[in-house]
Amino acid sequence: MPVYKAPTRDTRFVVNELIGLETFQNLPGFANAQRDLTDAVIEEAGRFVSEVVAPLNQIGDREGCTRHPDGSVTTPTGFKAAYRQYVEGGWATLSAPEAFGGQGLPHVIGFVMEEYLASANQAFAMYPGLANGAISSILVKGSPEQQQMYLPKMVTGEWLGTMNLTEPHCGTDLGLLRTRAEPRGDGSYAITGTKIFISAGDHDLSENIIHLVLAKTPGAPESSKGISLFIVPKFLVNPDGSPGARNAVAVGSLENKMGIHGNATCVMNYDGATGFLVGEECKGLAAMFIMMNAARLGVGMQGLAQAEAAYQNAVLYAQERRQGRALTGPAEPDQRADPLFVHADVRRMLMDAKTFTEGMRALSLWGALQVDLSHDAPTEEERQAADDVISLLTPVIKGYGTDMGYKTATDMQQIWGGHGYIAENGMEQFVRDARIAMIYEGANGVQAMDLCGRKLAAHGGRAIQRLFALVDAEVADAGDDLASVAGPLGKANGELKAATMWFMQHAMANPDALGAGAYAFMTLTGVVSLGLMWLKMAKVASAALAAGSDEAPFYQAKLVCARHWATRFAPQAGALRREIEAGADTVMALPVEAFATA
Amino acid sequence: MPVYKAPTRDTRFVVNELIGLETFQNLPGFANAQRDLTDAVIEEAGRFVSEVVAPLNQIGDREGCTRHPDGSVTTPTGFKAAYRQYVEGGWATLSAPEAFGGQGLPHVIGFVMEEYLASANQAFAMYPGLANGAISSILVKGSPEQQQMYLPKMVTGEWLGTMNLTEPHCGTDLGLLRTRAEPRGDGSYAITGTKIFISAGDHDLSENIIHLVLAKTPGAPESSKGISLFIVPKFLVNPDGSPGARNAVAVGSLENKMGIHGNATCVMNYDGATGFLVGEECKGLAAMFIMMNAARLGVGMQGLAQAEAAYQNAVLYAQERRQGRALTGPAEPDQRADPLFVHADVRRMLMDAKTFTEGMRALSLWGALQVDLSHDAPTEEERQAADDVISLLTPVIKGYGTDMGYKTATDMQQIWGGHGYIAENGMEQFVRDARIAMIYEGANGVQAMDLCGRKLAAHGGRAIQRLFALVDAEVADAGDDLASVAGPLGKANGELKAATMWFMQHAMANPDALGAGAYAFMTLTGVVSLGLMWLKMAKVASAALAAGSDEAPFYQAKLVCARHWATRFAPQAGALRREIEAGADTVMALPVEAFATA
Repeated sequence: MPVYKAPTRDTRFVVNELIGLETFQNLPGFANAQRDLTDAVIEEAGRFVSEVVAPLNQIGDREGCTRHPDGSVTTPTGFKAAYRQYVEGGWATLSAPEAFGGQGLPHVIGFVMEEYLASANQAFAMYPGLANGAISSILVKGSPEQQQMYLPKMVTGEWLGTMNLTEPHCGTDLGLLRTRAEPRGDGSYAITGTKIFISAGDHDLSENIIHLVLAKTPGAPESSKGISLFIVPKFLVNPDGSPGARNAVAVGSLENKMGIHGNATCVMNYDGATGFLVGEECKGLAAMFIMMNAARLGVGMQGLAQAEAAYQNAVLYAQERRQGRALTGPAEPDQRADPLFVHADVRRMLMDAKTFTEGMRALSLWGALQVDLSHDAPTEEERQAADDVISLLTPVIKGYGTDMGYKTATDMQQIWGGHGYIAENGMEQFVRDARIAMIYEGANGVQAMDLCGRKLAAHGGRAIQRLFALVDAEVADAGDDLASVAGPLGKANGELKAATMWFMQHAMANPDALGAGAYAFMTLTGVVSLGLMWLKMAKVASAALAAGSDEAPFYQAKLVCARHWATRFAPQAGALRREIEAGADTVMALPVEAFATA
Repeated sequence: MPVYKAPTRDTRFVVNELIGLETFQNLPGFANAQRDLTDAVIEEAGRFVSEVVAPLNQIGDREGCTRHPDGSVTTPTGFKAAYRQYVEGGWATLSAPEAFGGQGLPHVIGFVMEEYLASANQAFAMYPGLANGAISSILVKGSPEQQQMYLPKMVTGEWLGTMNLTEPHCGTDLGLLRTRAEPRGDGSYAITGTKIFISAGDHDLSENIIHLVLAKTPGAPESSKGISLFIVPKFLVNPDGSPGARNAVAVGSLENKMGIHGNATCVMNYDGATGFLVGEECKGLAAMFIMMNAARLGVGMQGLAQAEAAYQNAVLYAQERRQGRALTGPAEPDQRADPLFVHADVRRMLMDAKTFTEGMRALSLWGALQVDLSHDAPTEEERQAADDVISLLTPVIKGYGTDMGYKTATDMQQIWGGHGYIAENGMEQFVRDARIAMIYEGANGVQAMDLCGRKLAAHGGRAIQRLFALVDAEVADAGDDLASVAGPLGKANGELKAATMWFMQHAMANPDALGAGAYAFMTLTGVVSLGLMWLKMAKVASAALAAGSDEAPFYQAKLVCARHWATRFAPQAGALRREIEAGADTVMALPVEAFATA
């Protein structure tokens, strides 16, 4: 069975040493984040997840969820008990606001837990993960009464939530949706329609499920400007706050899918179900994006999470499995063969994985810090700066993070050779589970268009200029000892600037030039952002070593990974820029008939 | 259900127009390859595969194979009947020698069939595919009596064959194998041991199965120099050629794996089974490599094959599925939304797939031509030249072809969005099936080491020099109209030369520098080889257009794909060279403890 141990030392490096969470304690939202508390939370979260949640990962994959003849859905063996422990341990409440029973810790800490949960068991992690999105939108757009009615039990995890966007004919293009919301005159609406691919749509983990559903009111515009957001509880809530009558929402079927078998992916039938409008009619898109942005960062984290879990098992196998000899001569001559670990090509994959996972952990948690700062920083200017950066990087963390998560999981499976293809060893599950993260919450091509079509242009390119400046400042501030990292980062940033300039010069005349280069641009931004993190981490490591740290090997490894980024990741920047500058020419040249098989 | 239509027009383009098979008719092995015959074979093969084999692909995935209490194994519904049609149609005999009942067609034509079969149903294709490897080694290393006893029925497909190399503790490193072969004094050996991951190890398709088994004779050296190859028939063959007594070989279990469910992946227990030595004792490695090289080209073809099948279904979906609007304004304003096909990012993936599959088809069939020429070319010099090129390119076709096959299948699944993750749509099966091709017959990292550690250095680098010269000549011969392809190809070839030079200068001093760069070198060679094919194809297309072909759109599409290679594939060459030149520094710097989770 595959193993998982939460990488708490590395998390604490990022939280304490890289982003210095404690240094923000003067800000309102960070008051609870004393280092001794957050360190304890991190270690305890790691222990809980490794001991309670991880052992259910393979069971969940094998058993999947079950829809019973009465329409009810049960989760795999052990999920219910583990979820009860999760709720009782208060793990759902970490970064939720104190006003609704949360612990009021920064999002950074909530994200740490999201990574660990998703590494241990992505299908399990999705149950509370989807609820987080639902909570976010009620927090921002719900009325005080709605917040009071739903949030306290959602924050504790006693109730879970879902996001109902997709319909059979309508995924990215929400203007096409057909689910109707008829006002009943009593303030409620009758919701009717079919939603598909609803993760955690029904299950036996919580006593109620709060569905957030996009639907159209009568006479609403046909475009995405005509959609509204509704709360549709599985059980209507009694005045005393207890679950009451069963609402008219039912699971039509469960999907049979490539992975995340332990999560119930439901077809949901709404048949005049009672729903309550969140915010205003026809303003559902904005509320939906609040939900989505939280979810997208979480999905990016899933890419990292599957990569990390697969990496840990590849590291163990590379030590245990003996095959062949080191190119430099037998490493362990008294054995019949050397461990896989001696082979440079195996080590290449492990170093790529280590450089990606540690870099992505830094980027994700630093991104979570920007979320916190966008709310809690003392000045409007600082809040705006943080918001600019995280708005820009959300599609990058989601898109680049999940692409690389899948690639890394695949590489780690490769280290296992034929044994990696065998189900019982668990490596192939990491790949199948990682695959979905590239698709849901906006396929990665949609993330690329969000980045290039929306985020890049907003406020005259203010956000990308901030990123350029952040990288330039970090490069300028690097000492000679880090020139081998700062140099390639500066160069990669130059490629990103050039690609941005190229878009500015060509996208207006031919929007397809933007579309054809958007994916490469997203990847390029990912490469640069990872490099920014590695230069920051290298500086921390360098300072720790200079100060005579008694954890020298830990910091030396950081310096090696930073150089690995510079030599093995940074070179891609030039190629990506050239792809972008190729424009739409060959991409859009052929008519549809040219793609038909003859 | 996914569809598959054999791309016969494109195959005929490669066979007739690119490699000009008919022009070799003066050579002994090509006498049967008149164009009207081969064209008819290609069309008929395409029809048979699309109508008979493809419809079983999803059934095979769902049902898998079954091991019964008596140890017998049955294949999924329909496989047995389809295989009977395959044998009765003479499809197994295409490129087998006439002396044993084959049709004596060039390997090129056999490879066409391998591609189609693997696209239609990889799990099914593996049954005859493995037999091809077994046939190759008996043809070259078997005694005349063995050839007479086994080959006629193997060539027709009445009997199938397997390759038994791997043991639980022994994959790449064959020196570790433990299966014993004790001489019985009557010319036979008693074979005892356990083999794992034996594809098509048992089944109900053929009346006999000829296992080729690596084992060690008493007193043999412990290294791979001590292994011998044995024929171990499932049923011992009577003097009249009919299957006789059941041999002591049994299936211990079937593996539960990520994909290729329709193929029986067996644990094989040999318990004093009767085996017959092929060639000499302790010379099994050479015989095994004959088997392996044939199999590796076939596996490379599987990468292409899964990419092609996934591509066809993505093209259809991109036309049917409507979502959003073209960036340049509504393409079909009377519809609620445009087809996915209008989106540049979707088209990017389709163009990448088209450029890879058509380029790889050309490379594989051109490679098969080199196999034929290495046997049949009139002069020793020509035979050697062909052998050099295909020896060099075999690991590239296997490694790069399957890496790109998996990537392409993943991209095509991505076009389907959430629907691509749902099992019934079949897109995720292409990805799971494509994944194994990167692993078996030598994991791709092993291919990279074969290329860089063995093929590159052989005969003073003669083979890679031939590739450089082929590319240079093709570039020099290109007219101004093809400068946009020839220029980038010449540049990419320059990067490959520089990388080769770098290896020469550094690998002796530090073999790990070779190991750390081998994978990037394999990819770089793949990029250049694909470019070589695209420049060749562009020339053919350009000439056809100049001659006023009435298939202008077909040839125009070739020119666009050639430029797509130049703008979207070629830029990777520089990045790969820089990765190679980074050497082993960061790759090998860290001790094993640095990879442990803390």
